[in-house]
Amino acid sequence: MRWLSLNPKRPPSIFSPVVRFASTKPAMSSINKSAHPFDKTRLDALLNRRFFYAPAFEIYGGVAGLYDYGPSGSALQANIIAEWRKHFIVEEGMLELDTTIMTPASVFETSGHVARFADWMVKDAKTGDVIRADHLVKNVLESRLVGDKEARGQVATPAKEDEKDKKKKKKATKSAAVKLEDEVVKSYETTLAQLDNFSGPELGELCRKFDVRNPDTGNEVTDPQEFNLMFASSIGPTGQHPGYLRPETAQGHFLNFSRLLEYNNGRIPFASAQIGRSFRNEISPRAGLLRVREFTMAEIEHFVDPEDKSHPRFKDMQDVVLVLLDRHVQSSGNTSTIKMSIGEAVSKGVIANQTLAYFMARIYLYLLKIGIDPDRLRFRQHMANEMAHYATDCWDAEIQTSSGWVECVGCADRAAYDLTVHSAKTGHPLVVREALKQPIVTEKEVAELDKKTLGRTFKQDAGILQKHIESLEEEALLSLKEQLSEGSTSIFINGKGFEITPDLLRIERRTFKQSIREYTPNVVEPSFGLGRILYSLLEHTYWSREQDIERGVLSLPPVVAPTKVLIVPLSSKEEFDPLVQEVSSKFRKAGVFSRVDDSNTSIGKRYARNDELGTPYGVTIDFACEYRDMFTFVRCLLVDFTAENQIFVFTLIFGDTILTLSKTALQNSTMTLRERDTMDQRIGPIDDVIATVTDLVEGSIDWAEACRRLPVYDGVQAID
Amino acid sequence: MRWLSLNPKRPPSIFSPVVRFASTKPAMSSINKSAHPFDKTRLDALLNRRFFYAPAFEIYGGVAGLYDYGPSGSALQANIIAEWRKHFIVEEGMLELDTTIMTPASVFETSGHVARFADWMVKDAKTGDVIRADHLVKNVLESRLVGDKEARGQVATPAKEDEKDKKKKKKATKSAAVKLEDEVVKSYETTLAQLDNFSGPELGELCRKFDVRNPDTGNEVTDPQEFNLMFASSIGPTGQHPGYLRPETAQGHFLNFSRLLEYNNGRIPFASAQIGRSFRNEISPRAGLLRVREFTMAEIEHFVDPEDKSHPRFKDMQDVVLVLLDRHVQSSGNTSTIKMSIGEAVSKGVIANQTLAYFMARIYLYLLKIGIDPDRLRFRQHMANEMAHYATDCWDAEIQTSSGWVECVGCADRAAYDLTVHSAKTGHPLVVREALKQPIVTEKEVAELDKKTLGRTFKQDAGILQKHIESLEEEALLSLKEQLSEGSTSIFINGKGFEITPDLLRIERRTFKQSIREYTPNVVEPSFGLGRILYSLLEHTYWSREQDIERGVLSLPPVVAPTKVLIVPLSSKEEFDPLVQEVSSKFRKAGVFSRVDDSNTSIGKRYARNDELGTPYGVTIDFACEYRDMFTFVRCLLVDFTAENQIFVFTLIFGDTILTLSKTALQNSTMTLRERDTMDQRIGPIDDVIATVTDLVEGSIDWAEACRRLPVYDGVQAID
Repeated sequence: MRWLSLNPKRPPSIFSPVVRFASTKPAMSSINKSAHPFDKTRLDALLNRRFFYAPAFEIYGGVAGLYDYGPSGSALQANIIAEWRKHFIVEEGMLELDTTIMTPASVFETSGHVARFADWMVKDAKTGDVIRADHLVKNVLESRLVGDKEARGQVATPAKEDEKDKKKKKKATKSAAVKLEDEVVKSYETTLAQLDNFSGPELGELCRKFDVRNPDTGNEVTDPQEFNLMFASSIGPTGQHPGYLRPETAQGHFLNFSRLLEYNNGRIPFASAQIGRSFRNEISPRAGLLRVREFTMAEIEHFVDPEDKSHPRFKDMQDVVLVLLDRHVQSSGNTSTIKMSIGEAVSKGVIANQTLAYFMARIYLYLLKIGIDPDRLRFRQHMANEMAHYATDCWDAEIQTSSGWVECVGCADRAAYDLTVHSAKTGHPLVVREALKQPIVTEKEVAELDKKTLGRTFKQDAGILQKHIESLEEEALLSLKEQLSEGSTSIFINGKGFEITPDLLRIERRTFKQSIREYTPNVVEPSFGLGRILYSLLEHTYWSREQDIERGVLSLPPVVAPTKVLIVPLSSKEEFDPLVQEVSSKFRKAGVFSRVDDSNTSIGKRYARNDELGTPYGVTIDFACEYRDMFTFVRCLLVDFTAENQIFVFTLIFGDTILTLSKTALQNSTMTLRERDTMDQRIGPIDDVIATVTDLVEGSIDWAEACRRLPVYDGVQAID
Repeated sequence: MRWLSLNPKRPPSIFSPVVRFASTKPAMSSINKSAHPFDKTRLDALLNRRFFYAPAFEIYGGVAGLYDYGPSGSALQANIIAEWRKHFIVEEGMLELDTTIMTPASVFETSGHVARFADWMVKDAKTGDVIRADHLVKNVLESRLVGDKEARGQVATPAKEDEKDKKKKKKATKSAAVKLEDEVVKSYETTLAQLDNFSGPELGELCRKFDVRNPDTGNEVTDPQEFNLMFASSIGPTGQHPGYLRPETAQGHFLNFSRLLEYNNGRIPFASAQIGRSFRNEISPRAGLLRVREFTMAEIEHFVDPEDKSHPRFKDMQDVVLVLLDRHVQSSGNTSTIKMSIGEAVSKGVIANQTLAYFMARIYLYLLKIGIDPDRLRFRQHMANEMAHYATDCWDAEIQTSSGWVECVGCADRAAYDLTVHSAKTGHPLVVREALKQPIVTEKEVAELDKKTLGRTFKQDAGILQKHIESLEEEALLSLKEQLSEGSTSIFINGKGFEITPDLLRIERRTFKQSIREYTPNVVEPSFGLGRILYSLLEHTYWSREQDIERGVLSLPPVVAPTKVLIVPLSSKEEFDPLVQEVSSKFRKAGVFSRVDDSNTSIGKRYARNDELGTPYGVTIDFACEYRDMFTFVRCLLVDFTAENQIFVFTLIFGDTILTLSKTALQNSTMTLRERDTMDQRIGPIDDVIATVTDLVEGSIDWAEACRRLPVYDGVQAID
């Protein structure tokens, strides 16, 4: 530490004088995250302002269902993916794949997508506008129910709608604030509870039954038609090879099954995993990231012995309790859930098998880890008509958002369907060949014909006779054997008799040994829509400060937050760089991703910006705080940037004393640490703060523990 | 440490008896990586066998130009991307983006892709087979040059070709081992050196001039036609919105420019970066990963002031020496390169500006970091016709492979082209508005007309007169001003005179202050083809053991190797699990990705497999090695897995002594560490080995240093 005397020839330039006084804040602030009701309009504005995502091709007027992720959204998505990779691929030892999006038509013809991967759409009878049939029924009936509640004076607290939306809804139902008969209400509710269970023609009937019309025009709609959701293209310069963009990554796993099995040394069970882009040409996407035409998904295909769907690590998960909405409850027009451990659910037959349940528990733990609110998460079982015909059981992890319950992860036992159809189509065996520990030994009677003599004896009838004998069952063979043991016997075919002698036919008991078991594995498929999860997470973590509704915060957990620590230098002057670089580099070495905000705005504004970006921690390099005790008396901090040789000096005036500190002195200094949600500020030596932040980010300590380690900071009040 | 006496009632089962004797190996083995010439067939077999990648839809017969990455390839790609993200996005503070692949046609109409993103193709005049024109010329001429060399007895050592390929080539040229005139050789070589410079019609002329025919049939080919390389599709259910799959990610950056600039607080320069899939409908892809229809690319768009293309960190890079092949050399039909520091290249005008050169140096350092051989890397400048018309300068990082020099990274100064055309088309200003530190103050003469009087005086001629006066230059205004100061004057327009009085027109000197500078930034674009880099890296790191050509090795640097450490338990028996888990978990905590290979094959085979997978280190948990000194005498190691309570015991027989050790005793034990390239084995306590491997993987020490830390292991000779 060096103390330089003030150079009287060069009066110090004054730099942001900071007045300090004792803090009146409590050691840890209490916060109320639900002071203001959730406001989607404000959240959307924040996400747009901070460029989490925005409509793609916006300057060209945009294209419905296509979004670009900006720096914050890309980083959040990358962290969600990194945690997914860790939680599933690394911890479960899965085999990662990266397969192509462009797919020849023949693959999707086999998989059934060309014939069946379609939604039902209706057209406005007059304008020809296209609407997805199930969405139309849902929106119109829900809107009428809202109108009924309004009429009954039971208005729910709806999320803020803009005027345009309100108008649309009114137009749609032509019955806003119209009371419905109790019976009608009941029938609407029952219909909505099982909406996913209706076929296209049934949706058409519902439209007629309930007089469902196009909300935008009031016109009737046509009968539902199927529209295939795959984007079509063609491969190669001749245009003769039709192709589709994959609507899911799954087929890439199935087609590579043999290679994966070999890579896994022929052993089963194993899982492959893939994170990648898929495409669905949605009919009329409107719900932001919840329904898009291009999306990143993460899929697992866990290949398992159909005769043994137990899971080796099930015991580690069996006590995980999930909120379940089973198919029987839904079919009865109800949406009430139960809480049950997966151990109990499997033993009671609610979930089909251990492997399926194991993955449901792992999905649950993953979603909690990245910050999804467990109280707004449920697993809904598919109803009979909803599930693919070949599937054994299927559960969707649904997350509650302002748009209702949204399917974010599907978890299905697809049985042996996919491997079977591709194998049948290509002739390539997609099977497991397993050496049996105990060969299966069987005995049976075998007929041995002397074909030469047979041909000589029976001429053109020899073939018929041979075929007949070879088709005989065990019992018939035994009886024939007995007869032959007594000499010749006769066989009658279509009324014609043939005399068989023991030299023509011998029947003997033989032993057969089967040492290989060959089977098509079943597959359990957890399939994640990452964009939907990302959006739901933003809704679950968004809130506004109690004292100021304009000040939004995203309480993203450190594991997914785009930036973990914001470094706030007191000025953007170049002279600050070495100190800032030092702190940056220490964070980098500790594996903590930090960003420097050296913009020209106030520290308060920089923190407010980072609250909106979800940055959990902020550090301000507090040059003077090693001399904290003196600072009770400090009146003014002067910094001289004009000093020669880039050595800048700080001049402190306290009491009647003037002191000047060199940069070197200050490098042994302290930092303040700010926590995003509470806005608490603590202080400590730079290395202690870095170590504490590292532990916080890694999740090995919580904020309360950090507060025990670092004393409260009672400095600069103006920051927030 | 506990020593248990042997239980005589239960004779120990014998498990892989290991004979140990003193090592004759030197402390560090010398290796010869070029003992065998590069053999592409062997490498391809390895990549296929170890599922780095394989033709997509293989069981459906495959589709040219589409490949799936298996577990090893996916992991290698993920590591190449992670290092890219670190080297460019994190270290340079770039703004990451993730934009959509599906793009409305209007965007590519504006960018020029619909009109110009095409290759020239020719058709076989008889069969109609489609071939890319430049590739055809290249292959045929190169093949003839090879034939000439053969005829002259100067046969180069060609990579092994299968018979089919040879046949094809012969067919193509009909001149294998045919000597050419010296002049013809010269003209072929000149043509090849500037092949990228020819237009379609010029390629057609070359075909006629050199009688270039379809190699597969010997037929003539048609005149070249353009084929657009974008995959077309349509968006939405009505089929009325044409779209294309992006052939590059760049447009996504340009369209989001305003948002990015705002995110960066309005400051420039800054760079955006994106890693993602792109698509090109190649005419006849044949070269494995080097020419594919779907690929992952990484692109940077660095936005810079057109009037200042210096780079703030140029001084850190200026001494980096690159191998350059400039456009003048190529245009003269030559391919000789020069070595030059980028500092010198910029000052001599070889590279257009600092920013472009800075990125070339950063690209170079990145490629070296992931393992590309610097001796097989050059930067080739685009020739005049090759470069886009708007570009200022463009250099390709080319990597030498068995298929010749391959463009892997393009680095172009695209000037203001992209932002300008999108801005013009959409009317959305894509500009930087910069507050000028010093407002620009200008003075000029301004004409002020009294329009009312003007209209009254000149009626229908008033407009013509006004237009004329407003179009006058400074000088004319000054002269008019002088005349007016003396009273009325006349103006003649098309021979007609108008008398102007001072009350009609006043000319005054005014001061103008411009405080905002508005401009369209230029963009420097480094664009990486990750699949090409990945494949080149595999070629550069592949070699065969001197003593056994069948034993391939991929010497991938730890930073990109799919697995950093292989953990080899001596047996797959469950009883080994706790120890293996402990070592696994210690590696995980150290941030080192490890895999356990507990397959039933020999340790030697497991290591050989991992040499092919590029795994740099292997550890064998060597239960007994704490007792290493004794082991000079040990003859046999017996392991008894039948012991009660899962406590297994090891029985050592050395000299005439029999000793039995418990698991507990062994957990304080040592591990051997094997290095992939040298096959050296070292030994040390488990924690020391883990610390050494961590340092090796992080690159903070090299193998020589590791050898100083850990003593040589002179145990089990059978391992390799």
